[in-house]
Amino acid sequence: MEDFTNLLAKNARQIGEMLDAKLSNHIESGEIARPPRLLAAMRHGVLNGGKRLRPFLVIETARLFDANIEAARCVGAALEAIHCYSLIHDDLPAMDNDDLRRGKPTVHKAFDEATAILAGDALLTIAFDFLSDEKLELDAKIRLQLINGLARSAGLGGMVGGQVLDLEAETKKPDESGIITLEAMKTGALIRYACEAGAILSNATREDRERLSEFGAAIGLAFQLADDVLDVTSDTNALGKTAGKDIAANKATLVALHGVDWAKHQLEGLMEQADGLLEPFGNKADILRATARFVIERKN
Amino acid sequence: MEDFTNLLAKNARQIGEMLDAKLSNHIESGEIARPPRLLAAMRHGVLNGGKRLRPFLVIETARLFDANIEAARCVGAALEAIHCYSLIHDDLPAMDNDDLRRGKPTVHKAFDEATAILAGDALLTIAFDFLSDEKLELDAKIRLQLINGLARSAGLGGMVGGQVLDLEAETKKPDESGIITLEAMKTGALIRYACEAGAILSNATREDRERLSEFGAAIGLAFQLADDVLDVTSDTNALGKTAGKDIAANKATLVALHGVDWAKHQLEGLMEQADGLLEPFGNKADILRATARFVIERKN
Repeated sequence: MEDFTNLLAKNARQIGEMLDAKLSNHIESGEIARPPRLLAAMRHGVLNGGKRLRPFLVIETARLFDANIEAARCVGAALEAIHCYSLIHDDLPAMDNDDLRRGKPTVHKAFDEATAILAGDALLTIAFDFLSDEKLELDAKIRLQLINGLARSAGLGGMVGGQVLDLEAETKKPDESGIITLEAMKTGALIRYACEAGAILSNATREDRERLSEFGAAIGLAFQLADDVLDVTSDTNALGKTAGKDIAANKATLVALHGVDWAKHQLEGLMEQADGLLEPFGNKADILRATARFVIERKN
Repeated sequence: MEDFTNLLAKNARQIGEMLDAKLSNHIESGEIARPPRLLAAMRHGVLNGGKRLRPFLVIETARLFDANIEAARCVGAALEAIHCYSLIHDDLPAMDNDDLRRGKPTVHKAFDEATAILAGDALLTIAFDFLSDEKLELDAKIRLQLINGLARSAGLGGMVGGQVLDLEAETKKPDESGIITLEAMKTGALIRYACEAGAILSNATREDRERLSEFGAAIGLAFQLADDVLDVTSDTNALGKTAGKDIAANKATLVALHGVDWAKHQLEGLMEQADGLLEPFGNKADILRATARFVIERKN
Protein backbone atom coordinates (compact mmCIF):
# COMPACT_ATOMS: atom_id res chain seq x y z
CA MET A 1 0.00 0.00 0.00
CA GLU A 2 2.97 2.28 0.64
CA ASP A 3 3.91 1.87 -3.01
CA PHE A 4 0.38 2.65 -4.10
CA THR A 5 0.30 5.86 -2.07
CA ASN A 6 3.54 6.94 -3.71
CA LEU A 7 2.26 6.15 -7.19
CA LEU A 8 -0.92 8.10 -6.57
CA ALA A 9 1.05 11.07 -5.22
CA LYS A 10 3.40 11.01 -8.20
CA ASN A 11 0.46 10.98 -10.58
CA ALA A 12 -1.18 13.86 -8.70
CA ARG A 13 2.01 15.88 -9.14
CA GLN A 14 2.14 15.19 -12.89
CA ILE A 15 -1.53 16.02 -13.44
CA GLY A 16 -1.10 19.15 -11.33
CA GLU A 17 1.81 20.21 -13.53
CA MET A 18 -0.22 19.64 -16.68
CA LEU A 19 -3.15 21.69 -15.34
CA ASP A 20 -0.76 24.35 -14.08
CA ALA A 21 0.79 24.66 -17.56
CA LYS A 22 -2.62 24.84 -19.27
CA LEU A 23 -3.71 27.53 -16.80
CA SER A 24 -0.69 29.77 -17.31
CA ASN A 25 -0.99 33.35 -18.55
CA HIS A 26 0.19 32.24 -21.98
CA ILE A 27 -2.50 33.16 -24.53
CA GLU A 28 -3.21 30.31 -26.96
CA SER A 29 -4.23 30.76 -30.59
CA GLY A 30 -7.93 31.58 -30.88
CA GLU A 31 -7.88 33.40 -27.53
CA ILE A 32 -7.89 37.18 -27.05
CA ALA A 33 -6.69 37.65 -23.44
CA ARG A 34 -6.64 35.69 -20.18
CA PRO A 35 -8.07 37.93 -17.46
CA PRO A 36 -5.85 37.50 -14.34
CA ARG A 37 -8.73 37.36 -11.87
CA LEU A 38 -10.50 34.60 -13.76
CA LEU A 39 -7.27 32.68 -14.18
CA ALA A 40 -6.55 33.01 -10.45
CA ALA A 41 -10.02 31.71 -9.56
CA MET A 42 -9.65 28.75 -11.93
CA ARG A 43 -6.25 27.94 -10.47
CA HIS A 44 -7.64 28.19 -6.93
CA GLY A 45 -10.31 25.65 -7.83
CA VAL A 46 -7.96 23.26 -9.63
CA LEU A 47 -4.50 23.42 -8.04
CA ASN A 48 -5.75 22.48 -4.62
CA GLY A 49 -4.02 19.29 -3.57
CA GLY A 50 -6.66 16.95 -4.98
CA LYS A 51 -5.91 13.22 -5.17
CA ARG A 52 -6.49 13.23 -8.98
CA LEU A 53 -8.16 9.85 -8.71
CA ARG A 54 -10.02 10.15 -12.01
CA PRO A 55 -6.90 10.89 -14.09
CA PHE A 56 -5.14 8.06 -12.25
CA LEU A 57 -7.88 5.70 -13.39
CA VAL A 58 -7.60 6.86 -17.01
CA ILE A 59 -3.85 6.33 -16.97
CA GLU A 60 -3.84 2.98 -15.18
CA THR A 61 -6.57 1.52 -17.39
CA ALA A 62 -4.65 2.76 -20.46
CA ARG A 63 -1.54 1.02 -19.11
CA LEU A 64 -3.32 -2.35 -19.38
CA PHE A 65 -3.07 -1.92 -23.15
CA ASP A 66 0.40 -0.35 -23.28
CA ALA A 67 -1.17 2.85 -24.66
CA ASN A 68 0.39 6.28 -25.10
CA ILE A 69 0.58 7.43 -21.47
CA GLU A 70 1.15 11.09 -22.35
CA ALA A 71 -2.19 11.08 -24.21
CA ALA A 72 -3.87 9.31 -21.28
CA ARG A 73 -2.53 11.99 -18.95
CA CYS A 74 -4.03 14.68 -21.16
CA VAL A 75 -7.43 12.97 -21.13
CA GLY A 76 -7.06 12.64 -17.35
CA ALA A 77 -6.32 16.36 -17.00
CA ALA A 78 -9.44 17.20 -19.04
CA LEU A 79 -11.50 14.96 -16.78
CA GLU A 80 -10.00 16.56 -13.67
CA ALA A 81 -10.90 20.04 -14.99
CA ILE A 82 -14.52 18.84 -15.27
CA HIS A 83 -14.42 17.32 -11.78
CA CYS A 84 -13.04 20.56 -10.31
CA TYR A 85 -15.60 22.74 -12.09
CA SER A 86 -18.35 20.56 -10.63
CA LEU A 87 -16.97 21.06 -7.12
CA ILE A 88 -16.82 24.86 -7.58
CA HIS A 89 -20.45 25.01 -8.70
CA ASP A 90 -21.52 22.45 -6.08
CA ASP A 91 -20.08 24.61 -3.29
CA LEU A 92 -22.02 27.75 -4.35
CA PRO A 93 -24.53 29.30 -1.92
CA ALA A 94 -27.42 28.29 -4.22
CA MET A 95 -26.23 24.68 -4.10
CA ASP A 96 -24.41 23.09 -1.10
CA ASN A 97 -23.31 26.47 0.32
CA ASP A 98 -19.93 25.20 1.52
CA ASP A 99 -17.19 27.50 2.81
CA LEU A 100 -14.47 24.88 2.89
CA ARG A 101 -13.04 22.49 0.33
CA ARG A 102 -10.01 20.40 1.25
CA GLY A 103 -9.57 22.66 4.28
CA LYS A 104 -9.33 25.85 2.21
CA PRO A 105 -11.88 28.56 1.33
CA THR A 106 -14.09 27.56 -1.59
CA VAL A 107 -13.75 29.63 -4.79
CA HIS A 108 -16.79 31.84 -4.09
CA LYS A 109 -15.38 32.53 -0.61
CA ALA A 110 -11.86 33.32 -1.83
CA PHE A 111 -13.21 35.40 -4.76
CA ASP A 112 -16.94 36.04 -5.17
CA GLU A 113 -19.99 34.20 -6.41
CA ALA A 114 -20.03 35.56 -9.96
CA THR A 115 -16.34 34.77 -10.42
CA ALA A 116 -16.88 31.26 -9.05
CA ILE A 117 -19.71 30.59 -11.52
CA LEU A 118 -17.55 31.83 -14.41
CA ALA A 119 -14.43 29.99 -13.23
CA GLY A 120 -16.47 26.79 -13.25
CA ASP A 121 -17.78 27.57 -16.73
CA ALA A 122 -14.27 28.22 -18.02
CA LEU A 123 -12.92 24.99 -16.50
CA LEU A 124 -15.71 22.98 -18.08
CA THR A 125 -14.91 24.63 -21.40
CA ILE A 126 -11.15 24.13 -21.17
CA ALA A 127 -11.65 20.38 -20.72
CA PHE A 128 -12.80 20.24 -24.34
CA ASP A 129 -9.87 22.42 -25.38
CA PHE A 130 -7.53 19.78 -23.87
CA LEU A 131 -9.14 16.96 -25.85
CA SER A 132 -9.30 18.85 -29.16
CA ASP A 133 -5.85 20.44 -28.98
CA GLU A 134 -3.88 19.64 -32.12
CA LYS A 135 -0.83 18.96 -29.93
CA LEU A 136 -2.51 15.84 -28.52
CA GLU A 137 -1.12 12.81 -30.33
CA LEU A 138 -4.14 10.61 -30.73
CA ASP A 139 -6.21 9.47 -33.69
CA ALA A 140 -8.91 12.04 -34.55
CA LYS A 141 -11.77 9.51 -34.46
CA ILE A 142 -10.69 8.23 -31.05
CA ARG A 143 -10.53 11.78 -29.78
CA LEU A 144 -14.09 12.43 -30.95
CA GLN A 145 -15.22 9.29 -29.10
CA LEU A 146 -13.47 10.54 -25.96
CA ILE A 147 -15.07 13.98 -26.30
CA ASN A 148 -18.52 12.51 -26.85
CA GLY A 149 -18.14 10.13 -23.90
CA LEU A 150 -17.00 12.97 -21.66
CA ALA A 151 -19.86 15.25 -22.71
CA ARG A 152 -22.44 12.54 -22.11
CA SER A 153 -21.07 11.40 -18.75
CA ALA A 154 -20.68 14.99 -17.49
CA GLY A 155 -23.93 16.55 -18.73
CA LEU A 156 -27.70 16.23 -18.65
CA GLY A 157 -27.68 12.41 -18.69
CA GLY A 158 -24.71 12.07 -16.34
CA MET A 159 -23.09 14.17 -13.59
CA VAL A 160 -25.13 17.37 -13.95
CA GLY A 161 -28.34 15.37 -14.19
CA GLY A 162 -27.31 13.62 -10.97
CA GLN A 163 -26.78 16.95 -9.24
CA VAL A 164 -30.33 18.00 -10.09
CA LEU A 165 -31.67 14.69 -8.76
CA ASP A 166 -29.62 15.27 -5.62
CA LEU A 167 -31.21 18.71 -5.11
CA GLU A 168 -34.66 17.23 -5.64
CA ALA A 169 -33.90 14.45 -3.14
CA GLU A 170 -33.94 17.05 -0.35
CA THR A 171 -37.70 17.45 -0.74
CA LYS A 172 -39.03 14.39 -2.53
CA LYS A 173 -37.27 11.43 -0.94
CA PRO A 174 -36.13 8.93 -3.59
CA ASP A 175 -36.56 5.22 -2.98
CA GLU A 176 -33.65 2.76 -3.14
CA SER A 177 -33.60 2.56 -6.94
CA GLY A 178 -33.89 6.35 -7.14
CA ILE A 179 -30.86 6.73 -4.86
CA ILE A 180 -28.88 4.26 -6.95
CA THR A 181 -29.66 6.16 -10.18
CA LEU A 182 -28.83 9.48 -8.53
CA GLU A 183 -25.46 8.23 -7.30
CA ALA A 184 -24.61 6.45 -10.53
CA MET A 185 -25.09 9.81 -12.24
CA LYS A 186 -23.74 12.32 -9.74
CA THR A 187 -20.46 10.64 -8.83
CA GLY A 188 -20.52 7.37 -10.76
CA ALA A 189 -20.68 8.67 -14.34
CA LEU A 190 -17.29 10.42 -14.38
CA ILE A 191 -15.53 7.58 -12.56
CA ARG A 192 -16.97 5.07 -14.97
CA TYR A 193 -15.94 7.28 -17.88
CA ALA A 194 -12.40 7.55 -16.47
CA CYS A 195 -12.01 3.76 -16.70
CA GLU A 196 -13.71 3.50 -20.07
CA ALA A 197 -11.60 6.35 -21.46
CA GLY A 198 -8.42 4.39 -20.77
CA ALA A 199 -9.82 1.61 -22.95
CA ILE A 200 -11.14 3.96 -25.67
CA LEU A 201 -7.86 5.80 -26.08
CA SER A 202 -6.07 2.45 -26.28
CA ASN A 203 -8.41 1.33 -29.04
CA ALA A 204 -9.27 -1.72 -26.90
CA THR A 205 -11.77 -4.37 -28.00
CA ARG A 206 -15.44 -3.77 -27.32
CA GLU A 207 -15.36 -6.52 -24.70
CA ASP A 208 -12.45 -4.98 -22.78
CA ARG A 209 -14.05 -1.59 -23.04
CA GLU A 210 -17.27 -2.87 -21.50
CA ARG A 211 -15.39 -4.76 -18.83
CA LEU A 212 -13.55 -1.62 -17.75
CA SER A 213 -16.73 0.39 -17.90
CA GLU A 214 -18.28 -2.10 -15.46
CA PHE A 215 -15.18 -1.91 -13.29
CA GLY A 216 -15.60 1.88 -13.27
CA ALA A 217 -19.27 1.56 -12.35
CA ALA A 218 -18.39 -0.72 -9.43
CA ILE A 219 -15.76 1.58 -7.97
CA GLY A 220 -17.95 4.62 -8.67
CA LEU A 221 -20.65 3.09 -6.50
CA ALA A 222 -18.04 2.12 -3.91
CA PHE A 223 -16.71 5.68 -3.93
CA GLN A 224 -20.13 7.08 -3.11
CA LEU A 225 -20.89 4.43 -0.47
CA ALA A 226 -17.53 5.14 1.21
CA ASP A 227 -18.35 8.86 1.06
CA ASP A 228 -21.70 8.34 2.73
CA VAL A 229 -20.10 6.15 5.42
CA LEU A 230 -17.43 8.80 6.06
CA ASP A 231 -20.09 11.49 6.41
CA VAL A 232 -21.46 9.46 9.34
CA THR A 233 -18.25 8.18 10.92
CA SER A 234 -15.64 10.91 10.30
CA ASP A 235 -15.18 14.50 11.48
CA THR A 236 -14.78 17.77 9.56
CA ASN A 237 -11.06 17.99 10.27
CA ALA A 238 -10.23 14.59 8.84
CA LEU A 239 -12.55 15.08 5.86
CA GLY A 240 -11.39 18.60 4.92
CA LYS A 241 -15.08 19.37 4.31
CA THR A 242 -18.10 19.58 6.61
CA ALA A 243 -18.97 16.18 8.12
CA GLY A 244 -22.43 15.04 9.21
CA LYS A 245 -24.13 17.08 6.48
CA ASP A 246 -26.21 14.20 5.16
CA ILE A 247 -27.65 13.38 8.59
CA ALA A 248 -28.27 17.06 9.35
CA ALA A 249 -30.13 17.40 6.03
CA ASN A 250 -31.95 14.10 6.63
CA LYS A 251 -30.62 13.08 3.23
CA ALA A 252 -31.67 9.87 1.50
CA THR A 253 -28.54 7.76 1.06
CA LEU A 254 -28.07 4.01 0.99
CA VAL A 255 -26.28 4.35 4.35
CA ALA A 256 -29.26 6.21 5.85
CA LEU A 257 -31.51 3.45 4.49
CA HIS A 258 -29.51 0.37 5.48
CA GLY A 259 -26.89 1.50 8.04
CA VAL A 260 -23.09 1.58 8.17
CA ASP A 261 -22.56 -2.17 8.70
CA TRP A 262 -24.61 -3.02 5.62
CA ALA A 263 -22.62 -0.45 3.63
CA LYS A 264 -19.29 -1.93 4.75
CA HIS A 265 -20.47 -5.36 3.71
CA GLN A 266 -21.57 -3.98 0.32
CA LEU A 267 -18.17 -2.37 -0.12
CA GLU A 268 -16.47 -5.75 0.26
CA GLY A 269 -18.88 -7.18 -2.31
CA LEU A 270 -17.97 -4.41 -4.74
CA MET A 271 -14.27 -5.12 -4.15
CA GLU A 272 -14.84 -8.76 -5.12
CA GLN A 273 -16.76 -7.66 -8.21
CA ALA A 274 -13.94 -5.31 -9.20
CA ASP A 275 -11.39 -8.10 -8.72
CA GLY A 276 -13.43 -10.42 -10.91
CA LEU A 277 -13.66 -7.88 -13.71
CA LEU A 278 -9.90 -7.32 -13.66
CA GLU A 279 -9.05 -11.01 -13.71
CA PRO A 280 -8.36 -11.38 -17.45
CA PHE A 281 -5.66 -8.72 -17.18
CA GLY A 282 -3.62 -10.70 -14.63
CA ASN A 283 -0.73 -8.98 -12.84
CA LYS A 284 -0.99 -6.01 -15.17
CA ALA A 285 -4.08 -4.91 -13.25
CA ASP A 286 -2.43 -4.94 -9.80
CA ILE A 287 -2.43 -1.14 -9.58
CA LEU A 288 -6.12 -0.99 -10.50
CA ARG A 289 -6.83 -3.60 -7.80
CA ALA A 290 -4.98 -1.45 -5.29
CA THR A 291 -6.98 1.57 -6.52
CA ALA A 292 -10.26 -0.21 -5.89
CA ARG A 293 -9.03 -1.15 -2.40
CA PHE A 294 -7.99 2.47 -1.82
CA VAL A 295 -11.40 3.80 -2.85
CA ILE A 296 -13.15 1.39 -0.52
CA GLU A 297 -10.89 2.04 2.49
CA ARG A 298 -10.27 5.76 2.06
CA LYS A 299 -10.42 8.01 5.10
CA ASN A 300 -11.15 11.34 3.33
CA MET B 1 -35.17 43.31 -46.21
CA GLU B 2 -38.51 41.49 -46.16
CA ASP B 3 -36.83 38.49 -47.76
CA PHE B 4 -34.02 38.63 -45.23
CA THR B 5 -36.45 38.66 -42.30
CA ASN B 6 -38.15 35.57 -43.74
CA LEU B 7 -34.83 33.78 -44.22
CA LEU B 8 -33.78 34.55 -40.67
CA ALA B 9 -37.13 33.36 -39.30
CA LYS B 10 -36.94 30.14 -41.33
CA ASN B 11 -33.46 29.47 -40.02
CA ALA B 12 -34.60 30.17 -36.44
CA ARG B 13 -37.33 27.58 -36.88
CA GLN B 14 -34.91 24.96 -38.19
CA ILE B 15 -32.36 25.58 -35.43
CA GLY B 16 -35.16 25.51 -32.89
CA GLU B 17 -36.28 22.12 -34.20
CA MET B 18 -32.73 20.76 -34.00
CA LEU B 19 -32.33 21.96 -30.40
CA ASP B 20 -35.81 20.68 -29.54
CA ALA B 21 -34.89 17.23 -30.88
CA LYS B 22 -31.57 17.16 -28.99
CA LEU B 23 -33.37 18.19 -25.80
CA SER B 24 -36.06 15.50 -25.96
CA ASN B 25 -36.50 12.91 -23.23
CA HIS B 26 -34.82 10.30 -25.43
CA ILE B 27 -31.78 8.95 -23.56
CA GLU B 28 -28.70 8.75 -25.80
CA SER B 29 -25.99 6.11 -25.49
CA GLY B 30 -23.58 6.95 -22.68
CA GLU B 31 -26.36 8.61 -20.67
CA ILE B 32 -28.13 7.14 -17.64
CA ALA B 33 -31.33 9.24 -17.35
CA ARG B 34 -32.55 12.71 -18.30
CA PRO B 35 -34.10 14.29 -15.20
CA PRO B 36 -37.33 16.04 -16.31
CA ARG B 37 -36.78 19.17 -14.23
CA LEU B 38 -33.31 19.77 -15.66
CA LEU B 39 -34.51 19.10 -19.17
CA ALA B 40 -37.40 21.55 -18.67
CA ALA B 41 -35.03 24.26 -17.42
CA MET B 42 -32.67 23.72 -20.38
CA ARG B 43 -35.59 23.91 -22.80
CA HIS B 44 -36.86 27.07 -21.12
CA GLY B 45 -33.46 28.68 -21.64
CA VAL B 46 -33.06 27.54 -25.24
CA LEU B 47 -36.47 27.30 -26.91
CA ASN B 48 -37.31 30.94 -26.25
CA GLY B 49 -37.86 32.63 -29.60
CA GLY B 50 -34.26 33.72 -30.06
CA LYS B 51 -33.19 35.09 -33.45
CA ARG B 52 -30.51 32.35 -33.78
CA LEU B 53 -28.18 34.89 -35.34
CA ARG B 54 -25.00 32.90 -34.59
CA PRO B 55 -26.23 29.69 -36.28
CA PHE B 56 -27.42 31.81 -39.21
CA LEU B 57 -23.89 33.18 -39.59
CA VAL B 58 -22.38 29.68 -39.52
CA ILE B 59 -24.79 28.49 -42.19
CA GLU B 60 -24.54 31.52 -44.46
CA THR B 61 -20.73 31.59 -44.37
CA ALA B 62 -20.73 27.85 -45.12
CA ARG B 63 -23.01 28.52 -48.11
CA LEU B 64 -20.26 30.67 -49.68
CA PHE B 65 -18.35 27.42 -50.18
CA ASP B 66 -21.29 25.17 -51.08
CA ALA B 67 -20.64 23.17 -47.93
CA ASN B 68 -22.83 20.52 -46.27
CA ILE B 69 -25.60 22.70 -44.81
CA GLU B 70 -26.90 20.00 -42.49
CA ALA B 71 -23.46 19.87 -40.83
CA ALA B 72 -23.36 23.68 -40.66
CA ARG B 73 -26.76 23.65 -38.96
CA CYS B 74 -25.45 21.20 -36.37
CA VAL B 75 -22.43 23.43 -35.65
CA GLY B 76 -24.82 26.37 -35.42
CA ALA B 77 -27.03 24.53 -32.93
CA ALA B 78 -23.97 23.78 -30.76
CA LEU B 79 -23.03 27.44 -30.84
CA GLU B 80 -26.56 28.47 -29.95
CA ALA B 81 -26.52 26.11 -26.94
CA ILE B 82 -23.37 27.91 -25.74
CA HIS B 83 -24.94 31.31 -26.34
CA CYS B 84 -28.08 30.32 -24.39
CA TYR B 85 -26.10 28.88 -21.47
CA SER B 86 -24.20 32.18 -21.24
CA LEU B 87 -27.48 34.11 -21.04
CA ILE B 88 -28.80 31.83 -18.27
CA HIS B 89 -25.66 32.33 -16.17
CA ASP B 90 -25.48 36.04 -17.02
CA ASP B 91 -29.03 36.58 -15.73
CA LEU B 92 -28.29 34.98 -12.31
CA PRO B 93 -28.63 37.10 -9.14
CA ALA B 94 -24.85 36.97 -8.61
CA MET B 95 -24.31 38.37 -12.11
CA ASP B 96 -26.76 40.74 -13.89
CA ASN B 97 -29.72 39.76 -11.69
CA ASP B 98 -32.27 39.97 -14.48
CA ASP B 99 -35.85 38.76 -14.09
CA LEU B 100 -36.75 39.02 -17.76
CA ARG B 101 -35.26 37.63 -20.95
CA ARG B 102 -37.10 38.21 -24.23
CA GLY B 103 -40.10 39.26 -22.20
CA LYS B 104 -40.28 35.98 -20.23
CA PRO B 105 -39.05 34.98 -16.75
CA THR B 106 -35.36 34.09 -16.73
CA VAL B 107 -34.50 30.45 -15.91
CA HIS B 108 -33.70 31.11 -12.22
CA LYS B 109 -37.05 32.92 -11.90
CA ALA B 110 -39.05 30.18 -13.65
CA PHE B 111 -37.17 27.43 -11.75
CA ASP B 112 -34.60 28.27 -9.07
CA GLU B 113 -31.01 29.42 -8.88
CA ALA B 114 -29.38 26.01 -8.47
CA THR B 115 -31.35 24.59 -11.38
CA ALA B 116 -30.40 27.59 -13.55
CA ILE B 117 -26.70 27.11 -12.80
CA LEU B 118 -26.95 23.41 -13.66
CA ALA B 119 -29.09 23.98 -16.76
CA GLY B 120 -26.38 26.35 -18.02
CA ASP B 121 -23.69 23.78 -17.26
CA ALA B 122 -25.60 21.06 -19.11
CA LEU B 123 -26.17 23.31 -22.16
CA LEU B 124 -22.49 24.17 -22.32
CA THR B 125 -21.71 20.46 -22.12
CA ILE B 126 -24.25 19.41 -24.75
CA ALA B 127 -22.69 21.79 -27.27
CA PHE B 128 -19.66 19.51 -27.35
CA ASP B 129 -21.92 16.48 -27.62
CA PHE B 130 -23.40 18.00 -30.81
CA LEU B 131 -19.98 18.48 -32.38
CA SER B 132 -18.61 15.05 -31.41
CA ASP B 133 -21.74 13.06 -32.24
CA GLU B 134 -20.91 10.22 -34.61
CA LYS B 135 -24.06 11.03 -36.57
CA LEU B 136 -22.53 14.35 -37.73
CA GLU B 137 -21.18 13.85 -41.26
CA LEU B 138 -17.99 15.83 -41.20
CA ASP B 139 -14.33 14.88 -41.39
CA ALA B 140 -12.95 14.04 -37.93
CA LYS B 141 -10.04 16.48 -38.15
CA ILE B 142 -12.32 19.33 -39.17
CA ARG B 143 -14.62 18.51 -36.27
CA LEU B 144 -11.69 18.70 -33.85
CA GLN B 145 -10.78 22.12 -35.26
CA LEU B 146 -14.38 23.24 -34.77
CA ILE B 147 -14.42 21.94 -31.20
CA ASN B 148 -11.12 23.60 -30.36
CA GLY B 149 -12.22 26.89 -31.90
CA LEU B 150 -15.47 26.79 -29.96
CA ALA B 151 -13.75 26.00 -26.66
CA ARG B 152 -11.27 28.82 -27.11
CA SER B 153 -13.78 31.44 -28.20
CA ALA B 154 -16.23 30.50 -25.43
CA GLY B 155 -13.85 30.07 -22.49
CA LEU B 156 -11.17 31.78 -20.43
CA GLY B 157 -9.66 33.62 -23.41
CA GLY B 158 -13.00 34.43 -25.04
CA MET B 159 -16.59 34.90 -23.91
CA VAL B 160 -16.24 33.85 -20.25
CA GLY B 161 -13.07 35.93 -19.90
CA GLY B 162 -15.04 38.88 -21.29
CA GLN B 163 -17.76 38.36 -18.71
CA VAL B 164 -15.21 38.58 -15.91
CA LEU B 165 -13.77 41.77 -17.42
CA ASP B 166 -17.32 43.11 -17.64
CA LEU B 167 -17.87 42.45 -13.91
CA GLU B 168 -14.59 44.14 -13.07
CA ALA B 169 -15.53 47.13 -15.25
CA GLU B 170 -18.20 48.04 -12.67
CA THR B 171 -15.51 49.03 -10.17
CA LYS B 172 -12.31 49.67 -12.07
CA LYS B 173 -13.33 51.65 -15.15
CA PRO B 174 -11.54 50.37 -18.26
CA ASP B 175 -10.12 52.86 -20.76
CA GLU B 176 -11.09 52.76 -24.44
CA SER B 177 -8.74 49.91 -25.33
CA GLY B 178 -9.92 48.01 -22.24
CA ILE B 179 -13.54 48.39 -23.36
CA ILE B 180 -12.68 47.19 -26.87
CA THR B 181 -10.95 44.05 -25.51
CA LEU B 182 -13.84 43.39 -23.13
CA GLU B 183 -16.42 43.62 -25.91
CA ALA B 184 -14.35 41.66 -28.41
CA MET B 185 -14.31 38.86 -25.82
CA LYS B 186 -17.75 39.04 -24.22
CA THR B 187 -19.90 39.27 -27.35
CA GLY B 188 -17.39 39.40 -30.20
CA ALA B 189 -15.64 36.05 -29.75
CA LEU B 190 -18.66 33.82 -30.43
CA ILE B 191 -19.86 35.92 -33.38
CA ARG B 192 -16.41 35.85 -34.91
CA TYR B 193 -16.23 32.11 -34.32
CA ALA B 194 -19.64 31.66 -36.01
CA CYS B 195 -18.29 33.18 -39.22
CA GLU B 196 -14.96 31.37 -39.01
CA ALA B 197 -16.72 28.06 -38.32
CA GLY B 198 -18.55 28.30 -41.64
CA ALA B 199 -15.18 28.51 -43.36
CA ILE B 200 -13.57 25.78 -41.23
CA LEU B 201 -16.32 23.25 -41.87
CA SER B 202 -16.12 24.02 -45.58
CA ASN B 203 -12.39 23.34 -45.54
CA ALA B 204 -11.88 26.85 -46.99
CA THR B 205 -8.43 28.28 -47.75
CA ARG B 206 -6.52 29.96 -44.93
CA GLU B 207 -7.07 33.32 -46.64
CA ASP B 208 -10.85 32.91 -46.84
CA ARG B 209 -10.95 31.67 -43.29
CA GLU B 210 -9.12 34.77 -42.06
CA ARG B 211 -11.28 37.03 -44.18
CA LEU B 212 -14.45 35.60 -42.65
CA SER B 213 -12.95 35.75 -39.19
CA GLU B 214 -12.36 39.49 -39.75
CA PHE B 215 -15.89 39.87 -41.08
CA GLY B 216 -17.11 38.19 -37.89
CA ALA B 217 -14.99 40.50 -35.74
CA ALA B 218 -16.45 43.55 -37.50
CA ILE B 219 -20.06 42.51 -37.04
CA GLY B 220 -19.33 41.34 -33.50
CA LEU B 221 -18.17 44.85 -32.64
CA ALA B 222 -21.16 46.30 -34.50
CA PHE B 223 -23.48 44.02 -32.55
CA GLN B 224 -22.16 45.32 -29.24
CA LEU B 225 -22.18 48.95 -30.36
CA ALA B 226 -25.79 48.60 -31.53
CA ASP B 227 -26.60 46.97 -28.17
CA ASP B 228 -25.08 49.85 -26.25
CA VAL B 229 -26.93 52.37 -28.42
CA LEU B 230 -30.23 50.52 -27.84
CA ASP B 231 -29.66 50.52 -24.09
CA VAL B 232 -29.66 54.33 -24.30
CA THR B 233 -32.35 54.92 -26.94
CA SER B 234 -34.87 52.08 -26.51
CA ASP B 235 -37.29 51.05 -23.76
CA THR B 236 -37.73 47.80 -21.82
CA ASN B 237 -40.82 46.79 -23.75
CA ALA B 238 -39.19 47.03 -27.18
CA LEU B 239 -35.99 45.37 -25.95
CA GLY B 240 -37.61 42.48 -24.10
CA LYS B 241 -35.01 43.06 -21.39
CA THR B 242 -34.35 45.92 -18.96
CA ALA B 243 -33.32 49.12 -20.82
CA GLY B 244 -31.14 51.90 -19.42
CA LYS B 245 -29.12 49.45 -17.31
CA ASP B 246 -25.74 50.67 -18.54
CA ILE B 247 -26.49 54.29 -17.67
CA ALA B 248 -27.99 53.31 -14.30
CA ALA B 249 -24.83 51.31 -13.52
CA ASN B 250 -22.60 54.11 -14.87
CA LYS B 251 -21.07 51.44 -17.08
CA ALA B 252 -18.04 52.11 -19.25
CA THR B 253 -19.11 51.54 -22.87
CA LEU B 254 -17.93 53.17 -26.07
CA VAL B 255 -21.31 54.88 -26.27
CA ALA B 256 -20.89 56.31 -22.75
CA LEU B 257 -17.42 57.51 -23.78
CA HIS B 258 -18.19 59.00 -27.21
CA GLY B 259 -21.97 59.39 -27.43
CA VAL B 260 -24.73 57.94 -29.64
CA ASP B 261 -23.92 59.97 -32.77
CA TRP B 262 -20.32 58.83 -32.77
CA ALA B 263 -21.52 55.22 -32.34
CA LYS B 264 -23.90 55.48 -35.29
CA HIS B 265 -21.09 56.84 -37.44
CA GLN B 266 -18.85 53.96 -36.33
CA LEU B 267 -21.57 51.48 -37.21
CA GLU B 268 -21.66 52.77 -40.78
CA GLY B 269 -17.85 52.43 -40.92
CA LEU B 270 -18.13 48.82 -39.75
CA MET B 271 -20.74 48.17 -42.44
CA GLU B 272 -18.32 49.42 -45.09
CA GLN B 273 -15.58 47.25 -43.64
CA ALA B 274 -17.87 44.21 -43.70
CA ASP B 275 -18.82 44.94 -47.32
CA GLY B 276 -15.17 45.19 -48.28
CA LEU B 277 -14.34 41.86 -46.68
CA LEU B 278 -17.17 40.14 -48.51
CA GLU B 279 -16.28 41.57 -51.90
CA PRO B 280 -14.36 38.57 -53.29
CA PHE B 281 -17.46 36.42 -52.79
CA GLY B 282 -19.62 38.56 -55.13
CA ASN B 283 -23.38 37.97 -55.18
CA LYS B 284 -22.97 34.80 -53.17
CA ALA B 285 -22.42 36.98 -50.09
CA ASP B 286 -25.63 39.01 -50.46
CA ILE B 287 -27.27 37.33 -47.49
CA LEU B 288 -24.21 37.99 -45.31
CA ARG B 289 -24.30 41.65 -46.39
CA ALA B 290 -27.95 41.81 -45.40
CA THR B 291 -27.03 40.18 -42.07
CA ALA B 292 -24.42 42.85 -41.35
CA ARG B 293 -27.01 45.52 -42.19
CA PHE B 294 -29.52 43.78 -39.92
CA VAL B 295 -27.05 43.67 -37.01
CA ILE B 296 -26.30 47.35 -37.38
CA GLU B 297 -29.92 48.49 -37.71
CA ARG B 298 -31.58 46.09 -35.29
CA LYS B 299 -34.17 47.41 -32.88
CA ASN B 300 -33.91 44.68 -30.21
